[in-house]
Amino acid sequence: MPSHDLEYPKQAYSTVNRYNHQACYELETIHQIINSSPLVNVAFIVPGSPFPMTLPMIGQMGSFTRPSADEGDPLDLYIHGYVSSRIMNMSRKSTSRAHEGEDGLPVTVTASHVDGLVLTLTPYSHNYNYRSAVLFGYATIVSDASEKLYAMELITNSVVPDRWANTRVPPTGAEMQSTSILKVKITTGSAKVRTGPTMPGDEKEIDTDDKELVDRVWTGVIPVYTALGEPVPGPFNTMQTLPPYLGEHLEQMNADAKEMATEIATKHTGQKKHDDFNES
Amino acid sequence: MPSHDLEYPKQAYSTVNRYNHQACYELETIHQIINSSPLVNVAFIVPGSPFPMTLPMIGQMGSFTRPSADEGDPLDLYIHGYVSSRIMNMSRKSTSRAHEGEDGLPVTVTASHVDGLVLTLTPYSHNYNYRSAVLFGYATIVSDASEKLYAMELITNSVVPDRWANTRVPPTGAEMQSTSILKVKITTGSAKVRTGPTMPGDEKEIDTDDKELVDRVWTGVIPVYTALGEPVPGPFNTMQTLPPYLGEHLEQMNADAKEMATEIATKHTGQKKHDDFNES
Repeated sequence: MPSHDLEYPKQAYSTVNRYNHQACYELETIHQIINSSPLVNVAFIVPGSPFPMTLPMIGQMGSFTRPSADEGDPLDLYIHGYVSSRIMNMSRKSTSRAHEGEDGLPVTVTASHVDGLVLTLTPYSHNYNYRSAVLFGYATIVSDASEKLYAMELITNSVVPDRWANTRVPPTGAEMQSTSILKVKITTGSAKVRTGPTMPGDEKEIDTDDKELVDRVWTGVIPVYTALGEPVPGPFNTMQTLPPYLGEHLEQMNADAKEMATEIATKHTGQKKHDDFNES
Repeated sequence: MPSHDLEYPKQAYSTVNRYNHQACYELETIHQIINSSPLVNVAFIVPGSPFPMTLPMIGQMGSFTRPSADEGDPLDLYIHGYVSSRIMNMSRKSTSRAHEGEDGLPVTVTASHVDGLVLTLTPYSHNYNYRSAVLFGYATIVSDASEKLYAMELITNSVVPDRWANTRVPPTGAEMQSTSILKVKITTGSAKVRTGPTMPGDEKEIDTDDKELVDRVWTGVIPVYTALGEPVPGPFNTMQTLPPYLGEHLEQMNADAKEMATEIATKHTGQKKHDDFNES
């Protein structure tokens, strides 16, 4: 069965109501959005506070029991943090409770990419090309040492492929002690995606028929992407040139990111009508 | 009084406990991080759900009563949305209650920028150069038409400066009706910022003294920035060249973003020791 067939179940809290033609529940799409984001936002409720706590963290989807699983398969989210921080403490308490039959700390994890500025005739129809994903799940602290190592390598290599093997590893006992990994068992999730150029149907006829207006307003898409700049060697670096795994990654990332944003600006993939981006 | 003197008050929920030498409570720093982010994350508690709701939205700090206020002044956060979406409905209910003495919908708003990959000798000391900000406040729906217009122009021009005046404005009555603006009165906020190169103090001596290790591991910072690609004119565009306000913005944005990330990779601004990024 092709993995892109797998979808997360729709729950009241995960269902996209607005512009639901942009909604997507496929594991593969959602996991790719999370995995390609250098930071994810982790939100959770703090008892007694009216404000949810939200932290930027590094996360990556993986499967410890089946490391060869691909992005379309059921996966857990591993998040890196420091052992004494607030979320880790709350998860630790939840983990103890989990052993008595509870589930861990409920967390909402989001990631968003802006792929383009969609500039139309009137501010009302302006938009972004974007990909955003949300996952809902229960976070516990990973206690198994080999699962922890698996997650640390997964997360390090998500920043630069093969970086783990090209540094001093394994971590010392003290490093293992003072690093915690959260594992989020995913309950469900969803994504919203907007792609493509400006479309005549996005605008009112009263605007598109107004030749003076059309002639004075530039309409189109400005691609947006994340670029990696010229590496700045640190004060104790002795390598004269970038090692291939690193240099090739930078070149590839830059070329791919630029090409992807431009392609997204050019090709529509299923939007039927005007669509704002920031709706749930 | 220089505006950078103004700081948000520290509350239990806003105080940075981990790596607090990276913490910052200055309005100017926090507002700049929010304003330069194409999306902010808006999190709020949904009664009956263990999961906070989190939405990516477009937001911008401003002062309707004193539009000339700068980023270091006390400001409100204006957020754009569609009138029937979930957060707007919840805020509308909160707004009605506000008239009876309550405060609006409590929201936690975050924005994060990754400015560089900090690659050190061992994964444990790897890091990002980053700027992240969090604001806590109470959201209500803007009902005053001129304040709504002020916010719509503010938000449109945050995507491309002067875009508002170069499109079909003002919005029609129907457009005004179906657009809602949330105004968040800020209670407090904080930021965390990591800048600069890899530092010898970031690593253990056992690693920096290991000449074989130092010689085989590239250490330094890869600058990361947001780039704008070649504009893709839409199917109904008739302008042969980009108008100056747009073309100049693209050039300036790209030059500034690249330069800023490289400068951040080069200059330390006050970190005293090894610092992970994802702590609260």
